[in-house]
Amino acid sequence: MTGREDDRARRLADLDARTIIHPHSVIGAPAEPLVLDRGEGAVVWDVQGKPYIDGTCGLWQCPVGHGRPELAEAAAEQMAKLEFYSSFGDYSNEPSIRLAERLLELAPPNMRRVFFTNGGSEGNETAIKLARLAHHHAGRPERFVILARTGGYHGMGGGSLAATGIDRLRAGYGPLMPGIEFLAKPHAMRGADVTDALVAELEERIERVGADRIAAFVGEPVLGVGGMVPPPADYWPRVQEVLRRHDILLILDEVVTAFGRIGHWFGCERYGIEPDIIVTAKGLSSGYIPMGAVLAGERVLDLADGASFLHGFTYNGHPVGAAVALANIGILEREGLLGRADRLGRRLLDALKPLERLDHVLEVRGVGMMLGVELDPAANAAGVQAAARADGVIVRASGDTIVLSPPLVIDEQQLDTLARVLTKHVAAA
Amino acid sequence: MTGREDDRARRLADLDARTIIHPHSVIGAPAEPLVLDRGEGAVVWDVQGKPYIDGTCGLWQCPVGHGRPELAEAAAEQMAKLEFYSSFGDYSNEPSIRLAERLLELAPPNMRRVFFTNGGSEGNETAIKLARLAHHHAGRPERFVILARTGGYHGMGGGSLAATGIDRLRAGYGPLMPGIEFLAKPHAMRGADVTDALVAELEERIERVGADRIAAFVGEPVLGVGGMVPPPADYWPRVQEVLRRHDILLILDEVVTAFGRIGHWFGCERYGIEPDIIVTAKGLSSGYIPMGAVLAGERVLDLADGASFLHGFTYNGHPVGAAVALANIGILEREGLLGRADRLGRRLLDALKPLERLDHVLEVRGVGMMLGVELDPAANAAGVQAAARADGVIVRASGDTIVLSPPLVIDEQQLDTLARVLTKHVAAA
Repeated sequence: MTGREDDRARRLADLDARTIIHPHSVIGAPAEPLVLDRGEGAVVWDVQGKPYIDGTCGLWQCPVGHGRPELAEAAAEQMAKLEFYSSFGDYSNEPSIRLAERLLELAPPNMRRVFFTNGGSEGNETAIKLARLAHHHAGRPERFVILARTGGYHGMGGGSLAATGIDRLRAGYGPLMPGIEFLAKPHAMRGADVTDALVAELEERIERVGADRIAAFVGEPVLGVGGMVPPPADYWPRVQEVLRRHDILLILDEVVTAFGRIGHWFGCERYGIEPDIIVTAKGLSSGYIPMGAVLAGERVLDLADGASFLHGFTYNGHPVGAAVALANIGILEREGLLGRADRLGRRLLDALKPLERLDHVLEVRGVGMMLGVELDPAANAAGVQAAARADGVIVRASGDTIVLSPPLVIDEQQLDTLARVLTKHVAAA
Repeated sequence: MTGREDDRARRLADLDARTIIHPHSVIGAPAEPLVLDRGEGAVVWDVQGKPYIDGTCGLWQCPVGHGRPELAEAAAEQMAKLEFYSSFGDYSNEPSIRLAERLLELAPPNMRRVFFTNGGSEGNETAIKLARLAHHHAGRPERFVILARTGGYHGMGGGSLAATGIDRLRAGYGPLMPGIEFLAKPHAMRGADVTDALVAELEERIERVGADRIAAFVGEPVLGVGGMVPPPADYWPRVQEVLRRHDILLILDEVVTAFGRIGHWFGCERYGIEPDIIVTAKGLSSGYIPMGAVLAGERVLDLADGASFLHGFTYNGHPVGAAVALANIGILEREGLLGRADRLGRRLLDALKPLERLDHVLEVRGVGMMLGVELDPAANAAGVQAAARADGVIVRASGDTIVLSPPLVIDEQQLDTLARVLTKHVAAA
């Protein structure tokens, strides 16, 4: 670090504090920022030149890693040609058409159409609206209730936040979209008959609310913000069976899980289910440009057949986003990153599993490259995050769980460093 | 058009119809798409090589016009260095810090902080949540009602759609965020005492609902989707006076009006008001990458001082979006596009005004480069849109109003062609 870099860092930190409200910050009490400057693979550097191993991939959004020149080239080429035009109504562009085709090739066979968005919140708003509209159009306007789950995270808009089952995230914002019913958080490793209990709860709730009032069930294959919680292996197929029996649509929120994070193009493949709507974002473009896609299956499209879908966000079908997403999918495929997620995820889980011997570590869990180290609430998860960062490793405390989701391109040595540094600071927490 | 271009167009059209759900389309009945291929200035070309004068700028998003190489270069340069990292909590990056600084330099003097988003819907969701949180934090959780207006358009999420006063856009989606009160649509040119009536309605509604239950008023300076409706000149200052007297926050939705569209950096300058929250998107980045910014003023920040703002979208503070926005603002300034909006807007209004002599033209109106030609509902606005397009001019029918919002770089000759073609088809409608 030179004096000049130090000055620049100081000036940027002051300016940040005076001008920006960061997401998840305290208004009027800005934190000292970590100003990142460049990235390559699984490493990012701050403006003072200090490197960090990126153990979270930002917010899960970067399976192909940072600083991929082919993505910058794809973006620049498309931006110079046609940077953007609305795709409302009959307007279209080639990159978004090609991307829709590619996504349907990769998706489960019941998927039929793609609706583009700019991120996960917009995707879940879209999915909830599409499910409600489908029933409305089919003559059942009273079918508007959405079943969601405690611990689920679906976004920050009026509908997606309403379906988010984390109380502190909804507090203070007044009444949100009504008609949400929360079910219990599924958790694979606590109790042998947990699936029986969860399915019984689902059946009872449907009985109580009335299937004829329920539009859809929304859930993440593996709870993300809620603590990286994989479901019991038989959870999803059994839930799907109940929902189908009652004509309730299944919205799978794959904003985190799609595009390799748990070893498949779509997480539903891992759990052997065929949802009616799949919501994606993040890994679709590796975050190089905001981009999301909602996939709609034949059941929801049959119900909605002939309905006017008067819905859309300005940048839907962004040609630059689509060009980047196509190049990103190409990298995931060419470099075999789906298989790598499974292999490296097991390596990281094995390296961290011994932490469970500590009294203040409740559980170490994971599926693919989504892992969580759950601490006793009395331990200091935020302190672990800070201490690891000082040692050049980025992890995130999500409640009491240290969550990990490295870029899928991380190498073994970086992964082992991540495990070693985290182990040291969890042990001391 | 060559045979090869024709084949390509056919293949893309078929693929589009088989794979995409477009915003504002009929599910199961795909339209024949207009597949755009490239753009430059105020002209876009389709895949068959046919040029169109862009009379709408897509969805208002492109003040600097299409195909600006300096924006592609700014994007590519930043993307190669640090494509993105979350700005949640204490993470930050230089382009977003520089952009926040620049926005506050340009904004009204009461503005203090910037919260970044990826578009207008997210911006209005953010503004509504921030206004409600501010009152909640100040010990008034019952102050959650949002005053909105018939004809207003604020987005498509659960909160932003709830505040959108266009019934057909809300139909079919079940119950949305509660606590919205709709006021009448302001309209400058219908009745001399219209402001008196609108202010009286506002006062009565506040009396009826109770000021101590109202968080904020949300409105566009000039109604956009609602038909390009400018308010009476004294409307906004008088509304602001009433709101301040009752401690109701003013959210100004400047997604369309900011960044030059009506001749100012922010539309509020034109109307002499200082809102508490300003929502922007579109012109901020000219749509080259999805980007939005919510500006927060001192009154709302004072109320919210010390509150945890547990809100944010993954791509908030995107460094590539911020780099593009900075370059875009540079172009707007360097090329004098704000003044140009006023000058060319008057020229276009003058050219179209004679249409009011026709029985089926109710009104030709506009402010800056936002213009509307309102037709009698019995006339065929959609037909005008289609006929103009066949003649190489893009306009949009929004309900019964033909709306116009060309790129601010459009030249006089293109503008005159736009006016001539539109006049011909409106006359025949």
